[in-house]
Amino acid sequence: MNTTLSISEAKRLVATCLETNGCSPEVAAQVAHVIVAAEADGAPSHGLFRVPGYVASLRSGKVDGSAKPLVSQLAPSAMKVDGAGGFAPPALAAARTEFIALTRRSGIAALAVTNVHHFSALWTDLESICSEGLCAMAFTGYLPFVAPAGGTKPLFGTNPMAFGWPRGDKGPMIFDQASSVQARGEIMLAARDGHRLKEGVGIDENGQPSTDPNEVLKGAMLTFGGYKGSAIALMVELLAASLIGEQFSYQAGETDNKDGGPPRGGELIIAMDPVQLGAKGALDHAELIFGKITEQPGARLPADRRYENRKRSALDGLTIPKAVIEKIDALVG
Amino acid sequence: MNTTLSISEAKRLVATCLETNGCSPEVAAQVAHVIVAAEADGAPSHGLFRVPGYVASLRSGKVDGSAKPLVSQLAPSAMKVDGAGGFAPPALAAARTEFIALTRRSGIAALAVTNVHHFSALWTDLESICSEGLCAMAFTGYLPFVAPAGGTKPLFGTNPMAFGWPRGDKGPMIFDQASSVQARGEIMLAARDGHRLKEGVGIDENGQPSTDPNEVLKGAMLTFGGYKGSAIALMVELLAASLIGEQFSYQAGETDNKDGGPPRGGELIIAMDPVQLGAKGALDHAELIFGKITEQPGARLPADRRYENRKRSALDGLTIPKAVIEKIDALVG
Repeated sequence: MNTTLSISEAKRLVATCLETNGCSPEVAAQVAHVIVAAEADGAPSHGLFRVPGYVASLRSGKVDGSAKPLVSQLAPSAMKVDGAGGFAPPALAAARTEFIALTRRSGIAALAVTNVHHFSALWTDLESICSEGLCAMAFTGYLPFVAPAGGTKPLFGTNPMAFGWPRGDKGPMIFDQASSVQARGEIMLAARDGHRLKEGVGIDENGQPSTDPNEVLKGAMLTFGGYKGSAIALMVELLAASLIGEQFSYQAGETDNKDGGPPRGGELIIAMDPVQLGAKGALDHAELIFGKITEQPGARLPADRRYENRKRSALDGLTIPKAVIEKIDALVG
Repeated sequence: MNTTLSISEAKRLVATCLETNGCSPEVAAQVAHVIVAAEADGAPSHGLFRVPGYVASLRSGKVDGSAKPLVSQLAPSAMKVDGAGGFAPPALAAARTEFIALTRRSGIAALAVTNVHHFSALWTDLESICSEGLCAMAFTGYLPFVAPAGGTKPLFGTNPMAFGWPRGDKGPMIFDQASSVQARGEIMLAARDGHRLKEGVGIDENGQPSTDPNEVLKGAMLTFGGYKGSAIALMVELLAASLIGEQFSYQAGETDNKDGGPPRGGELIIAMDPVQLGAKGALDHAELIFGKITEQPGARLPADRRYENRKRSALDGLTIPKAVIEKIDALVG
């Protein structure tokens, strides 16, 4: 019950669907790029499965599919891009070149991304920055799905944090991880496919542990590593909301129109230049610890599986459940 | 079998011990301050218990107790302080005022701390920065005690990461957490006191799960939240070593003289100015989510227990095991 699409077929399908539903051709291409990149990298929870959510947010008028992001300087080493109510990828694209140049000049720089609707994987935000030889971090909130450690009520977003390190031709080492034990999309896929969750992923509406994805979707997800993941989730809220003048995940939950698409929120990106920060041979040095990790049987680098998936997808195309394709087709028609 | 000391008595005891063993009066006071602050805040694993380690590193000549830190500018928004082979607190003290001013001017700034011996709690490094109205993060490596996820051999340091957010008169919200499930010092205390560890804290020399602190000290500690904590531990290595030209925890393990004191390493601090980054009312906004956390029964803010301990310590003094005091007394004599 699967269909195989090439990368370019998948991009065309998604872009057409987004354009039909109100995106400008440029925005449609940018968003299709990140959706298909996630699918190709082995993260279907951020892939074509999400297209109906993107479309719902266009149809409800929550997201402006032809928004013009506005880039401005906040301070000598801090920039802002106001996404003007559009999706996140066009906002990042508008600021990227200037942000990379600012980081190279300053040694370290911050990019505050506000007034965007972020629905994509964070690693795609960092890859184009780290590919330029920079080290970078990204933080973004979402909707209130995750309980703080010790509590039982959803408050935090799944709040991913990503970090990337340049590796020249090998492609950057990037990890991108939710502050929750699992990503929301994975729980949604488990619900769709009738799978149970592992212990510790979430609690039901009464605060009791549950492995039923439908109960956890109604209750609350839990943070990874208990109070430590909870502290990271709180940090993400402060960085992606308070610091840059955006709303918290719980505030997004109050203001969002519940169309199933991405809520309005913020993202903070910090980038640093290893050359400027004084480490001659920083990249060669980093390869030493990458080697020490991969020489241990069973251990691997965060991004390696993603790059393997990407290679395979380029050769063999993408395997997409027929039901997902049919839904997208119906949204085009 | 405990002794009660006032804060000032404890500082005097520790400072005298450090001075007797080769610290300049200024360095002795700075180091004594962070040791006693950790004890007062309820973290004995970074408190007076560590004095013999500090002294060992002075006696072996590994650490220069009267090192003169050298502050320099790396790039418009990045500074460096070369600790000149001394303890970390004097290096931070030498750079602090200028670093805070740089952050205010630039919006964001990085401080690369190299050639220091870091043995103290990270939150003390951030508190004086965040008390000035800035938001900040800190990262430092250590010695190879922690296995990467999936592996069985120690590679990473316990690699704490700290984050702080200013709260005006309330004192900053700061979390400071090892990338390992537990701090090394806590496992050492468990070994000393004959306590078992919880499941999942570590493995023995053969890579098998163990709850015996002595076996885990010989084997490897595990990261919190599995591969997610492992990714953070890797990030800390890259930020506190490769990025700023210092050595990895595993390299410290190769070069350290094993005197039981702190190895040579680096620390990265990133600070941001909420005023510059464009969020009017950022601090008031942050209070909203702090309130949402504490209104959930069972949930609390990361720093709250620390501040409660601090208040109690100021009133009632510090309760220190007699054996710890006797060891310090013997090192003075």
